[in-house]
Amino acid sequence: MKKRVVVIGGVACGPKAASRIKRLMPHAEVTIIEKNEILSYAGCGLPYYIAGEVRDHSELMSTPAGVVRDTHFFRAVKDITVVNRTVAERIDRKTKEVHAVSTLTGERRVFPYDELVLAVGSRTIQPPIPGVELKGVNFLSTVEDARKIRDQEGSLEGKHAVIIGAGLIGVEVTEAFVRQGMKVRIVEQTEHLLENLVDPEIAFHLKNEMLQKGVALNLKDRAKEILGDDQGRVRTVVTEQGSYPADMVLIAVGVRPEIRLAEEAGLEIGPLGGIRVDSHMRTSDPSIYAGGDCVENTSRVTGKPVYAPMGSTANKHGRVIADNICGRPTRFPGVLGTAIVRIFDLSLARTGLTEKETGQEELSVVTALSPAPDRAHFLPSAKVIIIKLIAENPSGRIVGCQVVGYGDVAKRIEVAVTSMSHGGTVMDLGNYDLAYAPPFSPAMDNIIVAANIAENKINDIGHGITPSEVRTRMEEGDDFIFLDVRSPEEFEQIRIEDERVRLVPLGKLREQIETIPKDKEIITFCKISLRGYEAQRILDGAGYAKVRYMDGGVVAWPYKKFVAS
Amino acid sequence: MKKRVVVIGGVACGPKAASRIKRLMPHAEVTIIEKNEILSYAGCGLPYYIAGEVRDHSELMSTPAGVVRDTHFFRAVKDITVVNRTVAERIDRKTKEVHAVSTLTGERRVFPYDELVLAVGSRTIQPPIPGVELKGVNFLSTVEDARKIRDQEGSLEGKHAVIIGAGLIGVEVTEAFVRQGMKVRIVEQTEHLLENLVDPEIAFHLKNEMLQKGVALNLKDRAKEILGDDQGRVRTVVTEQGSYPADMVLIAVGVRPEIRLAEEAGLEIGPLGGIRVDSHMRTSDPSIYAGGDCVENTSRVTGKPVYAPMGSTANKHGRVIADNICGRPTRFPGVLGTAIVRIFDLSLARTGLTEKETGQEELSVVTALSPAPDRAHFLPSAKVIIIKLIAENPSGRIVGCQVVGYGDVAKRIEVAVTSMSHGGTVMDLGNYDLAYAPPFSPAMDNIIVAANIAENKINDIGHGITPSEVRTRMEEGDDFIFLDVRSPEEFEQIRIEDERVRLVPLGKLREQIETIPKDKEIITFCKISLRGYEAQRILDGAGYAKVRYMDGGVVAWPYKKFVAS
Repeated sequence: MKKRVVVIGGVACGPKAASRIKRLMPHAEVTIIEKNEILSYAGCGLPYYIAGEVRDHSELMSTPAGVVRDTHFFRAVKDITVVNRTVAERIDRKTKEVHAVSTLTGERRVFPYDELVLAVGSRTIQPPIPGVELKGVNFLSTVEDARKIRDQEGSLEGKHAVIIGAGLIGVEVTEAFVRQGMKVRIVEQTEHLLENLVDPEIAFHLKNEMLQKGVALNLKDRAKEILGDDQGRVRTVVTEQGSYPADMVLIAVGVRPEIRLAEEAGLEIGPLGGIRVDSHMRTSDPSIYAGGDCVENTSRVTGKPVYAPMGSTANKHGRVIADNICGRPTRFPGVLGTAIVRIFDLSLARTGLTEKETGQEELSVVTALSPAPDRAHFLPSAKVIIIKLIAENPSGRIVGCQVVGYGDVAKRIEVAVTSMSHGGTVMDLGNYDLAYAPPFSPAMDNIIVAANIAENKINDIGHGITPSEVRTRMEEGDDFIFLDVRSPEEFEQIRIEDERVRLVPLGKLREQIETIPKDKEIITFCKISLRGYEAQRILDGAGYAKVRYMDGGVVAWPYKKFVAS
Repeated sequence: MKKRVVVIGGVACGPKAASRIKRLMPHAEVTIIEKNEILSYAGCGLPYYIAGEVRDHSELMSTPAGVVRDTHFFRAVKDITVVNRTVAERIDRKTKEVHAVSTLTGERRVFPYDELVLAVGSRTIQPPIPGVELKGVNFLSTVEDARKIRDQEGSLEGKHAVIIGAGLIGVEVTEAFVRQGMKVRIVEQTEHLLENLVDPEIAFHLKNEMLQKGVALNLKDRAKEILGDDQGRVRTVVTEQGSYPADMVLIAVGVRPEIRLAEEAGLEIGPLGGIRVDSHMRTSDPSIYAGGDCVENTSRVTGKPVYAPMGSTANKHGRVIADNICGRPTRFPGVLGTAIVRIFDLSLARTGLTEKETGQEELSVVTALSPAPDRAHFLPSAKVIIIKLIAENPSGRIVGCQVVGYGDVAKRIEVAVTSMSHGGTVMDLGNYDLAYAPPFSPAMDNIIVAANIAENKINDIGHGITPSEVRTRMEEGDDFIFLDVRSPEEFEQIRIEDERVRLVPLGKLREQIETIPKDKEIITFCKISLRGYEAQRILDGAGYAKVRYMDGGVVAWPYKKFVAS
């Protein structure tokens, strides 16, 4: 008898699993049940559709060859039955049946299965703010949502938008709205943008880019109420900090795994509220698999559950599910929590644990903060990127990486991701035979320099102090010499202003060393702290006992600095 | 007593080793002997200086902060003595002395050492072509060489250049010359550009780009003689194929390790003609280390010696040498032979073994050839890249990767490099949590798709045939159905013309399957062979026994194709 596979959910994981099942078992009967009309669309592309970069929403549903993945496509090409506009209401695990209802006709249908795949995705969190029901208040999860935003009463130009929540979606839509000529304000509860994804010294550069592009930021603020006019259209967002005009509001405070069906069917739910699956993507019922945004993943760094919904992961889940249903016991090894985002001209990427999270995990770590041009510095096209690399001490195992800048950020995060997937250490990374030519990287690639910095710290050769520690020490009125070893010309252009700062160019340090008191604590720095590190070693060699260099130098200093105009 | 370290060679490995030795052992006496005036310059930047992208040659010798690394810099900043314009003539290993002579004054000096570092680089191969001594015939290895080329009698615009040798330098300088408005012809003995670096189906795209940019190519040709005028200036290059005007000739047929000093001192030379070193970069004399372009490396794929001179590797060698001299027994794990090059708008990168080399190594492999947009296909900024991935069969261990295209090539090669550094398999690669957002990659990154293709082949699910095999079969008059499963519209635009071709769009294949004879061999394909693979699986499922899809489809087909104008 033919195996009957029912897949609930037609966006990413579902169609991928269904398609591969048909390729592995051509005679299987595969049915996809999808609640909306449109399926197999690129949900992550919605902000780019809103921005106008993607002209027609049908492009989000097409194959690279331009064929729209509609029900006909799945039938003709894949021999898969798609039942759309249909909501799965209930799973009967005893009889192995899915009970569903058409949203169009109200007709009820029962789908028997041998194997069931839950790819039901996530749902947006709806915060309890009065006024969310007003016209012009949007969420963004489906193509329909995006069309509603884009088609809203003609041109968006000049209108006021308030975005509540500064996660990935909030940030991406900010760019989209600005591209459409809107005036954008972000309201975010926490102190930093992308608070849960990156450490503050990386988030700082994102904030700067936002401010430079005219985005208003209400950080550590909370929306209290959304007010409308007498036609029920949004007009004002009231926060703890003030009242702001709004022709449109986007609520993007995050998503939660969609678990209603699973929970009601008695499947195990994990500690983070997602469907629990084993490494074969199998739920607590051996005939039911689950993947995509509705499940919890395992962190490849900690081995613990992590909720990290991502379209790329959903596709991988689909492939693993198909393999297992077709008798190939493939395993999914988990995720690192990688993410990347473009914000105007800046790119920002992260993977693994943030430094804050390593603290929560009680890991002993060293961090490197390395700003440098992304290609040979003598090429005018070179642009600075800043890498933060976090490694376990003393093993050197890389546990996190964050990269931000105007240059090629993506390449460096992929090196970290790949290395971490194999338990790579900073010692390993320092010797990768990465691709070098001047248009692509410095001779010592930025990520290799970052690895070398971390290794030097582990080996007690380099002694670093983070910018935030330095600032805290300043605020506490501590006594130390803040030794800037750049040239006077660099100092004129840009500098950190503090009475502890003393300028001794590196080339003069050896001859002027007698002028530096031996009993004081010294913190050295330069533009990026390569010379700062060199200065630390010179002072160490001269018998100075309390010398550290400040990670990342002036470039990575996230606080106020003097810039000559 | 202070340790005395003498370093011969002041370009990349030498200064790196010297600088780190001083950081690790501040009281060591470190001397660099360099034959030229200029040291610590970016040799790989020379083509970009010739192109005019780098305006002043001093930028090639500066730190990112703009400080020129001259003898004064090394003295003041690093406490390193640089003795430039001085040739090391002889090493006396018994007395531990280097005998050197100043090229400026003829003065002879003796440098005693406790530890010696040979970082003497490579020399360009000078082929025995009559006329190489003419004015206007150049090699490119030093800043002086590059200045000679760029300053040659005013503007280069409109002049004829002949480049002998189509390796990395030849290719980079081709772009540089074209940017300066020159008419360029390449004369190359072998059939393909970058013959030793990539397989023909990848080299093909480089050739195409060259031709489109107006570069003349004499492949499988050999320069016989270079003729000059009565002032001794080059005028003509005579090859086996013809005579060509030349105002300038660049000879770039490769480099050999510089081993004179080492050989005369009785140090071991490896099978490929480079200085032999162990994994600590130590020569056969335990007091002498060597690194950079003068040594042989070990291949991380085969474990065998490989000659792969590269500025990035030289820097890593320098670091390892410094560690070992300072009592840290660090090891250098070898190289993959990674290289990357930009040619006009195209990027090309490679690592590990080519398919040809896997044949020589008698490895059983599968290959994947995957062309696809480098980011979400619905973004207009997406550009096609083609990945060739080579994996051992059946282990799946990745042994080589080549990427070419107009999009982001560098990122994908780094994933392969990093994976291969850890012995990664295509199964591993398929599950990396790579950074996904539409501006950076498709939801299934290109390299993940390539890994999936290779895995499907290993698991006998996908059955591929390479374009070159298909062409050979055509030339031999074999009988098969060459099944194009694209749409009629795509077929009108671009197609492979052959009497075996039959068009059945994928969406019609299931309903028209009866019209396809079961006894014939079938080779399916589409634009990139994703649908070609799907068609293979459909036909397999319908009981067809001899079905394969052509790797890479029409996009990767490197031979003649019909394109609607």
